[in-house]
Amino acid sequence: MHHLKDLTVSTALRGSLERTHLTGDNADVVATDTQKNTVYAFAKEHGVGEIEDFALRLARHFVGEFSHITGARILVEEHGWHRIPVDGEPHDHAFSGAGDERRTTAVTVQDGQTWVVSGLTGLTVLKSTGSEFHGFPRDRYTTLAETNDRILATAVTARWRHTDLDTAECDWAKSFGEIRRILLEKFASKHSLSLQQTLYAMGEAALEARPEIAEVRLSLPNKHHFLVDLSPFGLTNDNEVFYAADRPYGLIEGSVLRDDAPDPGPAWHTTF
Amino acid sequence: MHHLKDLTVSTALRGSLERTHLTGDNADVVATDTQKNTVYAFAKEHGVGEIEDFALRLARHFVGEFSHITGARILVEEHGWHRIPVDGEPHDHAFSGAGDERRTTAVTVQDGQTWVVSGLTGLTVLKSTGSEFHGFPRDRYTTLAETNDRILATAVTARWRHTDLDTAECDWAKSFGEIRRILLEKFASKHSLSLQQTLYAMGEAALEARPEIAEVRLSLPNKHHFLVDLSPFGLTNDNEVFYAADRPYGLIEGSVLRDDAPDPGPAWHTTF
Amino acid sequence: MHHLKDLTVSTALRGSLERTHLTGDNADVVATDTQKNTVYAFAKEHGVGEIEDFALRLARHFVGEFSHITGARILVEEHGWHRIPVDGEPHDHAFSGAGDERRTTAVTVQDGQTWVVSGLTGLTVLKSTGSEFHGFPRDRYTTLAETNDRILATAVTARWRHTDLDTAECDWAKSFGEIRRILLEKFASKHSLSLQQTLYAMGEAALEARPEIAEVRLSLPNKHHFLVDLSPFGLTNDNEVFYAADRPYGLIEGSVLRDDAPDPGPAWHTTF
Amino acid sequence: MHHLKDLTVSTALRGSLERTHLTGDNADVVATDTQKNTVYAFAKEHGVGEIEDFALRLARHFVGEFSHITGARILVEEHGWHRIPVDGEPHDHAFSGAGDERRTTAVTVQDGQTWVVSGLTGLTVLKSTGSEFHGFPRDRYTTLAETNDRILATAVTARWRHTDLDTAECDWAKSFGEIRRILLEKFASKHSLSLQQTLYAMGEAALEARPEIAEVRLSLPNKHHFLVDLSPFGLTNDNEVFYAADRPYGLIEGSVLRDDAPDPGPAWHTTF
Repeated sequence: MHHLKDLTVSTALRGSLERTHLTGDNADVVATDTQKNTVYAFAKEHGVGEIEDFALRLARHFVGEFSHITGARILVEEHGWHRIPVDGEPHDHAFSGAGDERRTTAVTVQDGQTWVVSGLTGLTVLKSTGSEFHGFPRDRYTTLAETNDRILATAVTARWRHTDLDTAECDWAKSFGEIRRILLEKFASKHSLSLQQTLYAMGEAALEARPEIAEVRLSLPNKHHFLVDLSPFGLTNDNEVFYAADRPYGLIEGSVLRDDAPDPGPAWHTTF
Repeated sequence: MHHLKDLTVSTALRGSLERTHLTGDNADVVATDTQKNTVYAFAKEHGVGEIEDFALRLARHFVGEFSHITGARILVEEHGWHRIPVDGEPHDHAFSGAGDERRTTAVTVQDGQTWVVSGLTGLTVLKSTGSEFHGFPRDRYTTLAETNDRILATAVTARWRHTDLDTAECDWAKSFGEIRRILLEKFASKHSLSLQQTLYAMGEAALEARPEIAEVRLSLPNKHHFLVDLSPFGLTNDNEVFYAADRPYGLIEGSVLRDDAPDPGPAWHTTF
Repeated sequence: MHHLKDLTVSTALRGSLERTHLTGDNADVVATDTQKNTVYAFAKEHGVGEIEDFALRLARHFVGEFSHITGARILVEEHGWHRIPVDGEPHDHAFSGAGDERRTTAVTVQDGQTWVVSGLTGLTVLKSTGSEFHGFPRDRYTTLAETNDRILATAVTARWRHTDLDTAECDWAKSFGEIRRILLEKFASKHSLSLQQTLYAMGEAALEARPEIAEVRLSLPNKHHFLVDLSPFGLTNDNEVFYAADRPYGLIEGSVLRDDAPDPGPAWHTTF
Repeated sequence: MHHLKDLTVSTALRGSLERTHLTGDNADVVATDTQKNTVYAFAKEHGVGEIEDFALRLARHFVGEFSHITGARILVEEHGWHRIPVDGEPHDHAFSGAGDERRTTAVTVQDGQTWVVSGLTGLTVLKSTGSEFHGFPRDRYTTLAETNDRILATAVTARWRHTDLDTAECDWAKSFGEIRRILLEKFASKHSLSLQQTLYAMGEAALEARPEIAEVRLSLPNKHHFLVDLSPFGLTNDNEVFYAADRPYGLIEGSVLRDDAPDPGPAWHTTF
């Protein structure tokens, strides 16, 4: 069973640092890059555990390691994650973040017709294994290594288009709850060869289970987690320590459409 | 038992609007202020219910009400809230938001000494009643009305300072969980005459229950919720429809300190 | 000639405030609403001038006015604005903000065809007079007063579609510079009866002057500036002190299209 | 003379991509990493020039290079930079960004005394050469290479403390303008061996020139620009193409204090 710790760490050092300020002699300056490396290496060497213990280890290290450093301050923020429930059981390696998820709708009434799109946004999810990416074309500008085991993380924006608005009463809350559950379960349980494959599987599962909708649109930013190279420190990194990059990122967008879906009209327009 | 619906609504209208664009004749322009008023009034007149139903009612209204408006698009985002558990029971009128709460720590090692501050940030909470504000001084520039029943909402940033680091092992996770629970329970159950009083009660309760900490610092932005004046529409508003203002806002900050608390040293420094 | 001062002000008071914290007796609590009112009233009564002088006046007032307040801290941020040049002369009452403006492009190549959209975003502009809004329809939910003199402010996102890509070389930099100049000059010089009218005039002027483009799309959030009611303080407010609201806001979007404009194809798609 | 182009580029490809969606076969998927590499390589191989031309080259490349890709859309945002004037002349390799700079003040009145801090924030600056960083200590966790030529970029937050408030009238606007000019000129002209050295030199220059202030505090995030490794594409990169990283980043903070500076009292408190 995988365990997930997601931290933002800041380190600050103080000491007798006149030399760099006055002459640019950096013999007492612990490079920020070194501080960063130390955080990654300590995550591997000592584990993370409680954030207070992790911060204490780092602070004591910096003060003990460098002669002109007399003080260290370590700030840590821990972001919460929960296991995604699949068939009522917490999943082994799929998680959802404690982020600012919102339920959404976009209703259009135009020229006597009505369209309803329901959805959600800001639902962060992560799989710590069960994701591969290989077989993509390689040209002169391709350097990405193929992988059989990577972290897959995204912030789901999903929207689905309702049909049969005139003939049926929709239980919006139930429909929303079921589709949200299906999207999450499929993300967790589908072994992924690409985020595109996962996207299609999520949309397909929702369409198969819920006849009241005709189309699912998904926007899935690929929130890359890069394996930190710990080999300069004599450490292995067997998918243990990752760097969560902000930018650049990939963005996978797609629509999964029922074969007999009616024309969407203006349902998807962002503005008229 | 109070119920809470927290929506962000966008309305967009289309139609034959040549006149305003070409000549500035606004006879076909539904003012955005009118659209805003309509959203508030509909929340009262028809209730909110599911966001799809609310959006449908608004869309149909705009298209039906104004002769040159041929289309309406209503976007709604619903922000999730949960009841705060108090003594294991969901509270009647106190809620916490599904926001991006993080657990935090700030550890300082300096000149051979150690300080540990633990905390949390981004914990949004709201009481829909049980809060008053009156008796404040009135000078020439005071216009605020006194109230015996208002919404009290804030985003809690709390930090607490540990002591006895050398003589005792701290169970950081248990300590955090208990203090978080106490802060939430006190926010929910304390009848509030001012946010300052609530702040002090929260800090005091944590200090009383947890001997391992000597000080609690709280930063509580007063997230104002203003009662919408529905009287121009012939409607009453008995604490039913509120406008959640962004700015300006108040910010209440305070420290609750044990009488025999040791000197904080650099524990609270934001930078050295 | 109008002059513009755009400030964000924070006020913080300290003192012997035990009563509100311990018992909820607010006799010493200067309501944040009163502090806000004081800032507005002082802007009228004493003018703003240099931000240091403005802050000093406020700080001294709060300490002198309330018996239990022993300290005041006033933070001010001043946002820079420049006069828009029209025909080479700085305009009397039209300004552009020192914001994070970016030049943009969206190029599409698809099925052998090419489309180029150029533009800009983040260009904040404000007219302190020369803007009216009246004559809009009034229904049951309309409360907005008509006005013959208001502040008009927006953050321009403009995009324009190039044509004749195959037959002509485009001097992109010159085209951009000219269109940007025209948009700004028209915003400044066009007397506005509605933001829609201004939008159309800006797009029309660009199309008339620049044959290389066939369409201009503008997205103009109406950044409302509300006249502060100073009458409770015995002060008039002859369009001198405004409150810059964040939300809700109006958003005016429109496209100005040449009669013989070619089909846009996928040029405007936000995603494929 | 150095020239600076600062772009945010988004690339989107469309085509017959059924395989990856349906089976996870990625033979048609141009990895986002490859797209990113292509942008960097093209900046070197073809230069950037006007953003429309740069986007056109990229779009045509992707459609021509990969058989199943039938459409490409390239979005570019260009961020503006200006040369810093030094002694009235635009500097050869020092630039300031067209960002959201604000002038600030923090005024404190407490127990009969007054403190005034003036400053600015959000002033982005960059030197494309004239910056080195070497000689820092190397421990087990140090991997950073030494460099004699790097980009130095930061977003300046500067605050300076006024003295002699009682005996002298301060011309706040002139004082601000001069100190801002001095900070920019020193950033531009000081050959930098470390950001710390630059910080000290900026503060020292302000103190030497302006007797009305006793202390300058600077907060300088090190906005790293990493040289892109173009060698996999058979290209050299002689300080031509950089990646502007968001996180992690270093933050250099320091205070430059006149020898006979009076006690700051509460002047610098962020809150009371």
